[in-house]
Amino acid sequence: MRAVIAQMPGPDVAARTKVQLRQADLTKPPGSLGRLEEIAEWLAAWQGRERPRCERPRVCVFAGAHGVAARGVSAYPTDVTRQMVRNFIAGGAAVNQLTVAIDGDLRVYEMDLANPVADFTQGPAMDETRCARAMAYGMMAAETGIDVLCLGEMGIANTTSAAALCLALFGGEAADWVGPGTGVVGAALARKVETVGLGVEHHRAISGDPLAVLAALGGEELAAIAGAILAARMGHIPVLLDGYACTAAAAVLHRIDPTALDHCLIAHRSAEPAHGALCARLGKQPLLDLGMRLGEASGAALAVSLLKAACACLDGMARFGEAGVSPRNPS
Amino acid sequence: MRAVIAQMPGPDVAARTKVQLRQADLTKPPGSLGRLEEIAEWLAAWQGRERPRCERPRVCVFAGAHGVAARGVSAYPTDVTRQMVRNFIAGGAAVNQLTVAIDGDLRVYEMDLANPVADFTQGPAMDETRCARAMAYGMMAAETGIDVLCLGEMGIANTTSAAALCLALFGGEAADWVGPGTGVVGAALARKVETVGLGVEHHRAISGDPLAVLAALGGEELAAIAGAILAARMGHIPVLLDGYACTAAAAVLHRIDPTALDHCLIAHRSAEPAHGALCARLGKQPLLDLGMRLGEASGAALAVSLLKAACACLDGMARFGEAGVSPRNPS
Repeated sequence: MRAVIAQMPGPDVAARTKVQLRQADLTKPPGSLGRLEEIAEWLAAWQGRERPRCERPRVCVFAGAHGVAARGVSAYPTDVTRQMVRNFIAGGAAVNQLTVAIDGDLRVYEMDLANPVADFTQGPAMDETRCARAMAYGMMAAETGIDVLCLGEMGIANTTSAAALCLALFGGEAADWVGPGTGVVGAALARKVETVGLGVEHHRAISGDPLAVLAALGGEELAAIAGAILAARMGHIPVLLDGYACTAAAAVLHRIDPTALDHCLIAHRSAEPAHGALCARLGKQPLLDLGMRLGEASGAALAVSLLKAACACLDGMARFGEAGVSPRNPS
Repeated sequence: MRAVIAQMPGPDVAARTKVQLRQADLTKPPGSLGRLEEIAEWLAAWQGRERPRCERPRVCVFAGAHGVAARGVSAYPTDVTRQMVRNFIAGGAAVNQLTVAIDGDLRVYEMDLANPVADFTQGPAMDETRCARAMAYGMMAAETGIDVLCLGEMGIANTTSAAALCLALFGGEAADWVGPGTGVVGAALARKVETVGLGVEHHRAISGDPLAVLAALGGEELAAIAGAILAARMGHIPVLLDGYACTAAAAVLHRIDPTALDHCLIAHRSAEPAHGALCARLGKQPLLDLGMRLGEASGAALAVSLLKAACACLDGMARFGEAGVSPRNPS
């Protein structure tokens, strides 16, 4: 994986510059479309197209099972992961509706749900081989022809895993990185904090090696997301990240190389309290802030409409000369 | 107009309650769709439908001409208002692309652009009759059959008018409410602050009467927006407000009756610095915050995709029982 990261392509500066020049000549005050202009430039840079597009978005939900769930850290029974996978396949989840709304293609990647990764307070969640296999599985999501890849997850107890990843990668106290997830409070929340602290302490020796941290404290769906991010970069596909668990998986790559996430935007700031701090660590401002905390790529799918709007403005707006609109007064 | 305001219908509490009950049973942790759930309840309450819809959004741009523009308070020449109206009609502006993206219906309401309202530092911008006529014209936007009304404006110098409205309605210093608008800096910005201060001082005697303030310091497009908001309320059409000038027009109604904007959401927090403070005065949190500062209903049109997503989730998601998904553990 390190070899893959070392060979990541950079942005297409020429395509980005052409978008910037075009945007400066569209019939609006300079910069007045705000982040829509930033989105158009970012899509151009990472698709390698001077006219970026967002007609073929793919929404991916990676589902994994966590041994640490047995410690009572979630508000839901562990069976819910498999039940929700069936719900995704039947079309009944939020992400199904949100994917239809953006005319997207929803893929559900079911990891080995019958064999949860180990409880990370007792030993590594995965050995290196299992983690690498999960990353390779995730890489399949980044197929040629996709305009943008929306990444998300489902996995009872995976905000516990995400909090442990963040604590190991960035330091601080367990309580800084732990939140209610699907809605734990009181004694269960205290167990969650304790579990995260125990897990990170148990694996302190490998905390300088982000890929080892991912194997020790992560889950298969989180490793798959890291793999999908890398494959998207190689395949010139910009990525929308969704929520706390998804961003924690991405953070593993950022700790290896701070430029590894330059082709990614964070779609939505989760209501999970630590997500804001995690986004700040990655130097990224989420596009949306709507108090959502569902995961399953819901925020990423929702933000695709902003990408479509950015492309529509870039493509369809008239220029000052052709529209007979006067440019600004000399200042 | 006061008679209209006194007769405004309230929310449909039964429809809202049915949405709340349905949302509690959808396959997601309670509240995890954040503001999408709030949007669905709000649409239900103000459309008076237990299954709200967002299939027929209308986007309205009201264009007006301001005498105060002659004082050099804008970065653009005054001809740009008429030029942009032609651009809207020809399909070349940002709002055209954003309206297509939401499958909406764009209407451009051209006020009397050949006869700008008077420079408010010299006397009232409009007399009472002209203001009332502009409000009545705006009321035509709220036709039966529309699911949501997006309101926006175009008018060189109208952020100067908006700042004067805010200063007269809420107090403070002129500089608190003045920003760069389309991009004024330095001496032009100082002239803008001075102009706002002079105008509000000139009309201090009527500052306790919000409708008189609207006539004295507003513009025809801002009065039309106030009219459209009232007519939408009477016609059970929820409203998305866009940007600083549009929100300032709405604030006039809020000063008459603090419940007058309960059927309105603010779509986007403008990069115009005073917009955040104005939203706070109205007790409203904008849905989007993307650094846009274009006006022309662009932020409102963009936010319609969130309303569509909220309706799609409410309509399409499976319930716990039917999907075979376990509800949360007893806490």
